Amino acid sequence: MTDLNIEQQDPSDDAYVLEPGIVDSVLEMVEAGDRAHLLTLLEPLHAADVADLLEQISPAERRAFLTLLGTEIDGEVLSELSDGVREEVLEYLPQNILADAVKDLETDDVVDLIEDMEEPQQEVVLDALEDADRIAVERALQYPEETAGRLMQRELVMAPTHWTVGQAIDYLRTADDLPERYYNVMIVDPRMRPVGQVPLGKLMSSKRDVPLTAIMQDDFRTIPVLQSEEDVAYAFNQYHMVSAPVVDEDDRLVGVITIDDAMGVLDENAEEDMMLLAGLGDESLTDRVIETTRQRFPWLAANLVTAFLASMVISLFSTTIQSIVALAVLMPIVASMGGNAGTQSLTVAVRAMATKDLTGANVWRVIRREALVGLANGLVFAVIVGGVGYFWFGQPMLGVVLGLAMVANLLVAGLAGILIPIGMDKLGVDPALASGTFVTTVTDVVGFFAFLALASAILL
Amino acid sequence: MTDLNIEQQDPSDDAYVLEPGIVDSVLEMVEAGDRAHLLTLLEPLHAADVADLLEQISPAERRAFLTLLGTEIDGEVLSELSDGVREEVLEYLPQNILADAVKDLETDDVVDLIEDMEEPQQEVVLDALEDADRIAVERALQYPEETAGRLMQRELVMAPTHWTVGQAIDYLRTADDLPERYYNVMIVDPRMRPVGQVPLGKLMSSKRDVPLTAIMQDDFRTIPVLQSEEDVAYAFNQYHMVSAPVVDEDDRLVGVITIDDAMGVLDENAEEDMMLLAGLGDESLTDRVIETTRQRFPWLAANLVTAFLASMVISLFSTTIQSIVALAVLMPIVASMGGNAGTQSLTVAVRAMATKDLTGANVWRVIRREALVGLANGLVFAVIVGGVGYFWFGQPMLGVVLGLAMVANLLVAGLAGILIPIGMDKLGVDPALASGTFVTTVTDVVGFFAFLALASAILL
Repeated sequence: MTDLNIEQQDPSDDAYVLEPGIVDSVLEMVEAGDRAHLLTLLEPLHAADVADLLEQISPAERRAFLTLLGTEIDGEVLSELSDGVREEVLEYLPQNILADAVKDLETDDVVDLIEDMEEPQQEVVLDALEDADRIAVERALQYPEETAGRLMQRELVMAPTHWTVGQAIDYLRTADDLPERYYNVMIVDPRMRPVGQVPLGKLMSSKRDVPLTAIMQDDFRTIPVLQSEEDVAYAFNQYHMVSAPVVDEDDRLVGVITIDDAMGVLDENAEEDMMLLAGLGDESLTDRVIETTRQRFPWLAANLVTAFLASMVISLFSTTIQSIVALAVLMPIVASMGGNAGTQSLTVAVRAMATKDLTGANVWRVIRREALVGLANGLVFAVIVGGVGYFWFGQPMLGVVLGLAMVANLLVAGLAGILIPIGMDKLGVDPALASGTFVTTVTDVVGFFAFLALASAILL
Repeated sequence: MTDLNIEQQDPSDDAYVLEPGIVDSVLEMVEAGDRAHLLTLLEPLHAADVADLLEQISPAERRAFLTLLGTEIDGEVLSELSDGVREEVLEYLPQNILADAVKDLETDDVVDLIEDMEEPQQEVVLDALEDADRIAVERALQYPEETAGRLMQRELVMAPTHWTVGQAIDYLRTADDLPERYYNVMIVDPRMRPVGQVPLGKLMSSKRDVPLTAIMQDDFRTIPVLQSEEDVAYAFNQYHMVSAPVVDEDDRLVGVITIDDAMGVLDENAEEDMMLLAGLGDESLTDRVIETTRQRFPWLAANLVTAFLASMVISLFSTTIQSIVALAVLMPIVASMGGNAGTQSLTVAVRAMATKDLTGANVWRVIRREALVGLANGLVFAVIVGGVGYFWFGQPMLGVVLGLAMVANLLVAGLAGILIPIGMDKLGVDPALASGTFVTTVTDVVGFFAFLALASAILL
């Protein structure tokens, strides 16, 4: 432990990065089949770091590693693995080892682990659990994926409204099934509806004969069990909650979500939006070449359709280009600037939607703003490119055409960047999903068309 | 409260979005100057929601709103505002009101609020604080921005190693300066070095005569006070920490960071990466048109330089284009596909760096993978575009040129997408910062050059 502290005392960029030295040593031990030494190496590592290590070695090394480890595989390591690697590992992990590994996991981690498994494998895991845990996991699996019901844990601490501080403390002292982490005692009425919560710190500093209802916070928020994970994460971040009770349709307490789980979801959602905007699905560094190729293909294919559309627009003006070849030289500039400006607007819009900052109250203001920003930058760049076009080719009117097309395309880019994601959202489609392709289609088509049509009209 | 629960029970997409109705009612009250009614409307709202509301109305409405509110302005609302709006509001907020508003904030929120203020305004806020708080804030400001020292709060609960559970509980019962939220009691040695922590739940369920050292967790992680915010957020997410002690160079306890603050940082960093990748600075929906225009300008200007570079490459082949105008029609396809594939690789690389998944141990494997994926998709799309080029223009060799250029550019795109961010990181530059421009420069230049040079060689 002391070593770890000293190492961390160096606040360099590489904090928390697995040292290559460790990976090498681990691989050596795996190759040598030295199980005892391997265990010593892994002992100081957090499960999340062991999972990272497994993700950084090759599939063959991973298999050798896990085979050597055998029954010492930690369920938490499995639950920390990225989906792709986890799937791969679960394919060859012997059933008895898997069953053994999941036994000590909290139920929400078990749910996370088995929700993507095939039925027979799920059975193996469920059978390994104690009755109470198995029932909790099975219930959680009945809620739709990516809802509060899947994210919550059923282990929670509650007390009836008539208890005093002393009764609650005595209960906590003697109860043997308390969750590993809890920060509040939920106060529930006889129908199991939460009416307040008492933070542990408050409980501890109050006198024994004080009724819980006198010190409970009643301005807590409950999470509906069918609420999307994404909204749950948003609420934790927005309202600085540490844990929140989850309730069913009748407002009865069914579980609790803690901030560490919400933080994980927030991080995943941000990653998802970032990936979608770049035309990427749910890929990870550990996916194989063939899988990654296949994952990226549809996005590139969509882009190809866009590109051909743009080509068709250009082909309308073949004769114009043949007589003024400078047009072919300059036309990508208008399209490229439009694509860039459109991506800027789009990214701002997608992020604002994720943070619920784009609402009915300000949507028109934001659309107006994007149009004006597009127009303003369009005018500035029109002057610049117009000037360059003029000086480069010595034709003033070529500069004018370039400038006019630039203004038109940046204005359109600003509008497309905000209107397309709003439209997709209204249609119930994730605005990050295909907006990028649509926005570039618009800016490419408008960019080439505006430039070449203006050139045909003015220069010929 | 009951109303709130019922509203939340509808797990629709609009959960937690401010109702336009509320914004309208608030604006009506502001216009009517009805302060009492305004306060009633705001009363059930969380400070974060009031801040969101302020961000969604116009600057003039905002000013009228805050003027009407006067001394009732909540310091937490100020601390929840986005930087741009906060700066605007602080310009006209009377000093006495500002001083009054910050009094009840936790010291870490005060630090967050005043770190961007001008010196005279900082003084006003600092003077309003109690001595202990002022000293804490002044100390925090001595640490560099975006480090653990700025993020931590100094309010923490600690106990010496020789205490028993009973002594700790008695202390917590009587202490009157406990932080608003705390989850652990830090155990420190006589030199103030943390040696363990006891979660409140554990403290509560242990017997009074048990020594704290017998129940403390000693596998906690300490955060060096100079560690970057980003690494702090990473550690909380990676290791599922709820709070962590912050230590100085001599390993002495100087503060504590809680997960809610780390969650905020994680969210901001993800936003920053997403924005940088799209060529956006630190802008928000509330920025004015002129400001947004100015913010986006440099990125578009960088893109313009890239676009002109591409134009110069094209102009090298003017005569070729003049004799085969189909080249002008098809050339954007190669560049566009390369740009797209490059952005895919780049985004995966930037994200992998942020999550510390790209390390010395797997960097060569990942580079190889990107090259192979680029090659594989390049081959597939070469066949497709080659075929289309052939059928469209009836020239088999034109299809061959298009296909060859496609393979070359997608291979280069894959390599540029991974090598450029790695290079920038090695140079100590944020890989998300300018990678996008560099990658598209490479794919545009290589795309146009490969296609036109091959065409000149093969078709002429």
